[in-house]
Amino acid sequence: MSDPVVVEVLRGNLVESRHRGAAVVTDADGAIALGVGEVTKPIYPRSAVKPLQALTLVESGAADRHGLADEELALACASHSGEPAHVEGVARMLAKAGLDESVLACGAHWPLSQQAAFALARSGVPSALHNNCSGKHAGFLCASCAMGVDHIGYWRPEHAIQRAVREVLENMTGAVLSDDCRAIDGCSVPTWAAPLDKLARAFAKFGTGQGLEAMRARAAERLRTACARRPWYVAGSGRFCTEVIQLLGSRALVKTGAEGVFCGALPPLGLGIAIKCDDGAGRAAEAIMAALIMRFLPLDDRERSVLLRFAQPVLRNWNGFEVGALRVGEAISGAPQ
Amino acid sequence: MSDPVVVEVLRGNLVESRHRGAAVVTDADGAIALGVGEVTKPIYPRSAVKPLQALTLVESGAADRHGLADEELALACASHSGEPAHVEGVARMLAKAGLDESVLACGAHWPLSQQAAFALARSGVPSALHNNCSGKHAGFLCASCAMGVDHIGYWRPEHAIQRAVREVLENMTGAVLSDDCRAIDGCSVPTWAAPLDKLARAFAKFGTGQGLEAMRARAAERLRTACARRPWYVAGSGRFCTEVIQLLGSRALVKTGAEGVFCGALPPLGLGIAIKCDDGAGRAAEAIMAALIMRFLPLDDRERSVLLRFAQPVLRNWNGFEVGALRVGEAISGAPQ
Repeated sequence: MSDPVVVEVLRGNLVESRHRGAAVVTDADGAIALGVGEVTKPIYPRSAVKPLQALTLVESGAADRHGLADEELALACASHSGEPAHVEGVARMLAKAGLDESVLACGAHWPLSQQAAFALARSGVPSALHNNCSGKHAGFLCASCAMGVDHIGYWRPEHAIQRAVREVLENMTGAVLSDDCRAIDGCSVPTWAAPLDKLARAFAKFGTGQGLEAMRARAAERLRTACARRPWYVAGSGRFCTEVIQLLGSRALVKTGAEGVFCGALPPLGLGIAIKCDDGAGRAAEAIMAALIMRFLPLDDRERSVLLRFAQPVLRNWNGFEVGALRVGEAISGAPQ
Repeated sequence: MSDPVVVEVLRGNLVESRHRGAAVVTDADGAIALGVGEVTKPIYPRSAVKPLQALTLVESGAADRHGLADEELALACASHSGEPAHVEGVARMLAKAGLDESVLACGAHWPLSQQAAFALARSGVPSALHNNCSGKHAGFLCASCAMGVDHIGYWRPEHAIQRAVREVLENMTGAVLSDDCRAIDGCSVPTWAAPLDKLARAFAKFGTGQGLEAMRARAAERLRTACARRPWYVAGSGRFCTEVIQLLGSRALVKTGAEGVFCGALPPLGLGIAIKCDDGAGRAAEAIMAALIMRFLPLDDRERSVLLRFAQPVLRNWNGFEVGALRVGEAISGAPQ
């Protein structure tokens, strides 16, 4: 309740809006490199932990068994924009497991990509394949098949695949994820609240393999590599996660979640990052993530200039006039920008 | 900076996100009936003051001269959804003044209505007519013609029409709107920051005519009546402003603004309302407006049940499962709901 203002939205001479939040950077042992706000409070990580949820896909043997390519593993970690190649990729994942879109339980929504939505609207309506979580769901389904369990109800907390995911999340975060901290995510699978600092630690472990058993460390490396090679599949055209991973390759994995959550790993530094904006604002979480990467990761001039556009975005109106900007607070950025 | 949490977003057993903000209800003399948070701080009212900006349209004689119908006056007060009849109405306003869409300076954006955007995308791209502010701009242009001034640059702060609008806003709010509190709105016209309580007072005066010279009081009544008769033109299908005015008629005028602003008038009670969510969240501002109407305005059971859906919306996921809810704090609602 007492998180500080971490991002200001400027217009003219005034601060028009303010975002409060918490952000934490830790290593794989949980040592805090930076903490702003209430870093131990439990938050629903939502889609930000998709890369962790996807560990089960690799560890179950499904990735090998079905010969999943890098872009398919990236889709399992993705909140994709529903562009044609995203949709085709998810359909291919399902086909490799002998399934089709009829088994997806994520629900349908219009593609996040406006262009893809408009194109689709000309000829049809969205299916579950267009849901930004369809790759994660295809991953759960592939894993279910590889584990030899009936995939029916794969999205329910009592299903073997969700129990396996919960175990992975408990191992990665070091937090106990009890039923009373479980809610339903937008795509109907469980989301378990975990302390923000433990989510950062989970991403530090995911980014380095430190503290993980060998099989899990290899699975994490395979997923990281897939995302670094195929960043377009992690989000989509023009999206923050895609642009940042394209820019930094294996040096940064970043993943957005609903309601102002962002998680990430900086493998060369052994650090993990977790961000929660109190009010659920994605614009602020993105700016904070960009500012934290700029603070911690050694960057060249081009990289700094790309990240600065995300950390300090200029706000333009419908005529393209500059009307304001976002400004990340010094507690996050470490210095006046 | 120290506004309280006024809306909580619940998911499962936890509060997932929190919105801070300020809200104030005053009469036409500025006497405060309810104040929550920092009610004297200046905020950019953005589109929430369109009904006040439209006073110039009526007072200039343009509404009479061009024979503007109720729906056209409602469009001048609107943030419309860009549905076909909105677009046609704005084109008609311009035609009545001998103009066309080429003079609109608001910029183009896709219709706020998803259905309208999809339909438009099948055959074309948006024009300035689809901009949610095009009715306000058409109003400025009609007023310029009636005032006998060149409409070129009508959106600039130094143009006669914007100077007239500023005078109206100063008269209505009782605030001095100096250049250093002026910023550029999304549609390129000036937006002047004014203290929240003075915006509430302006709406109390607008809703009652109290404290206004006779011509301005009549202009306000004409605009209120137009909105009450044609609420669909104030926003659009399924939108909050339209639904609330449809429900309550002349008993409530409500108007949304960007970045978590809402203003309104409750004419039977002589009260005005102004709301600003610190983080710019429209979902919270809507819930607060609904809760304040429920707190102050005598309602029948049907009206209460409709408003409760806005004051305490259930959050559903892509499969329609209930996953959470918004909850307005007691400081606003006056009682546990």
